[in-house]
Amino acid sequence: MTDAAPIGADALLDFATATLAAAGLTPEHARLTADTLVHADLWGHQSHGVMRLPWYVARLKSGATQPLAASDYVVDLGAIGVIDGHDGMGQVAAAQAARDAIRRAKAHGVGAVAVRNSGHIGTAMYYTLMAPPEGCIMFLSTNASPAMAPWGGRQKSVGNNPWSWAAPAGRHAPLVLDIANTAVARGKIYLARQRNTRIPEGWAVDACGVPTTDPEAALNGIIQPMAGHKGYAISVVMDMLSGILTGSGWGPAVFGPYQAERRSGAGHLLIALNVEVFQPLDAFNARMEAMIAGLKAAPLADGTEEIFYPGEIEARNDARNRQDGLSLPADTVEDLVRLADALGIGDLWPGV
Amino acid sequence: MTDAAPIGADALLDFATATLAAAGLTPEHARLTADTLVHADLWGHQSHGVMRLPWYVARLKSGATQPLAASDYVVDLGAIGVIDGHDGMGQVAAAQAARDAIRRAKAHGVGAVAVRNSGHIGTAMYYTLMAPPEGCIMFLSTNASPAMAPWGGRQKSVGNNPWSWAAPAGRHAPLVLDIANTAVARGKIYLARQRNTRIPEGWAVDACGVPTTDPEAALNGIIQPMAGHKGYAISVVMDMLSGILTGSGWGPAVFGPYQAERRSGAGHLLIALNVEVFQPLDAFNARMEAMIAGLKAAPLADGTEEIFYPGEIEARNDARNRQDGLSLPADTVEDLVRLADALGIGDLWPGV
Repeated sequence: MTDAAPIGADALLDFATATLAAAGLTPEHARLTADTLVHADLWGHQSHGVMRLPWYVARLKSGATQPLAASDYVVDLGAIGVIDGHDGMGQVAAAQAARDAIRRAKAHGVGAVAVRNSGHIGTAMYYTLMAPPEGCIMFLSTNASPAMAPWGGRQKSVGNNPWSWAAPAGRHAPLVLDIANTAVARGKIYLARQRNTRIPEGWAVDACGVPTTDPEAALNGIIQPMAGHKGYAISVVMDMLSGILTGSGWGPAVFGPYQAERRSGAGHLLIALNVEVFQPLDAFNARMEAMIAGLKAAPLADGTEEIFYPGEIEARNDARNRQDGLSLPADTVEDLVRLADALGIGDLWPGV
Repeated sequence: MTDAAPIGADALLDFATATLAAAGLTPEHARLTADTLVHADLWGHQSHGVMRLPWYVARLKSGATQPLAASDYVVDLGAIGVIDGHDGMGQVAAAQAARDAIRRAKAHGVGAVAVRNSGHIGTAMYYTLMAPPEGCIMFLSTNASPAMAPWGGRQKSVGNNPWSWAAPAGRHAPLVLDIANTAVARGKIYLARQRNTRIPEGWAVDACGVPTTDPEAALNGIIQPMAGHKGYAISVVMDMLSGILTGSGWGPAVFGPYQAERRSGAGHLLIALNVEVFQPLDAFNARMEAMIAGLKAAPLADGTEEIFYPGEIEARNDARNRQDGLSLPADTVEDLVRLADALGIGDLWPGV
């Protein structure tokens, strides 16, 4: 299957916005959610991009996600906010929380905003990246549907619970971390089976919970956490922050975006720090530039052409994809065209 | 070499306190620092326990660590504090920062305290564990001397930059995460060479920066970050928080505790959250107990006898070691006796 012709990011944003509006979101919320998806594609994270539109639409149609949920404050006290998302779009609640955490950090040096009864938020760095242009550093944790077993177990009950940090980096694009705590995406194990190769140690356990390098056994088993027991511990901590502290769901009570009939139960915690309170922002930026210069100046390993700082690859992808347009996989294009037809907006599809 | 007879934790604490006082610390600071070391032993982390006493004493003797440094506030604004440790003991500055972050969280819901010009702090969870008895959650990051290459490089310039979270857990010992971002301790590679076995993929690169499973090549090369590029990205973020934001050293400008002549340059960031502002502490604790019950109830993998939540193993070790006494390796005992003799307090050694 060959990829379709590239589509401009703006055209794709308009299409995704129209799709989500047709599924019941307000124009403003539709545009925000569409923007999170298109950004994931721009950064090169297609697994979190517009290919997910059908999932979100299905959830809006089923009522598992409430299109017109009006989030409100359970707690609103100086540096702290707790938002109840009332089962609306996670993207909408998370973006509100990010703006709010920044506002509180501007007033108090630090702001922490928890979100309960939210939904899947897509790519976590979309929200933390709101902070650097405001001179702030931001942390975000979220929880997700079970993806790994507790360490020593053989049944999924802990999410991959993604987390992100972003910080200003002077003249460079921001420093960004955005990771899930599983060792590998399931697709890579399918690929190994197809190629008839073993998978590396540390990727998966079999159905008995025993580590395996056999892709078939792995697909009948469970993906392991990244870095073994460390990834398990990190995931539990992120569930504590995102699910327990926020007053939201945790563990098996959180459902994924592809489970169209189940309310999500996901929660998030966002913490913003105002750099200027710690030191002049110019000084911070100069130090960040020096750190990045140091990282990139290290002697290269054989076979490596360049060292990147965290976030640099996404920033380059973004610049290139804005210029060249986004090349979506042909099956994603088919899904989107079918979705648009079903919503009665097939004429809005921007692809040739 | 067989282990010496067990020593009571209190006796070891008294001895370590006397040692550090003889090296120039005030009685209060000597006791605090000694307490961090003995706790590491109690938790089963001997690599961070009293075996490090000679390193700290050497640094105090050389003046790389200033025994009587008086830390002061560079910033003291509501929810935010920035402490300058003036090259004193990292343990003293980090404990001050932890108490201060909790105090600020009690007043503002969240408190963030940065520490610059500090030193090696030993085990990170000693400080985050100050928060749960106060009804708070705490995050700590610190930076450390170069331990890994930037991803794609072949020269060490990024520390393993440990970080920790701790939270109350109802009737259970607190939930605790305390990890460094390298894949493995160097000692395990020495062991593999001794046993003439290969090391797993993902542990190390050779001198050319190429991944290797040969322990000899690994020892001539560099330990890899945990979870590959993810561990590299996490380490850089922790350096941003601990070194750049605090106004301290970062990257190769941070020196390790075993480098007796070099000032440390390490920094730390601590963030405390007051649970009660987000929800009643009782409700939080009940939810934590339910989460832990869920983790521990998962069906067991073949060969596993019990599932632990993060921090549970350390809490059990602590209880057992307090009762049975601490069994130190014989070479650690020899080092400590030699150290005490050199300081003229050989008669204080509590071992038989």
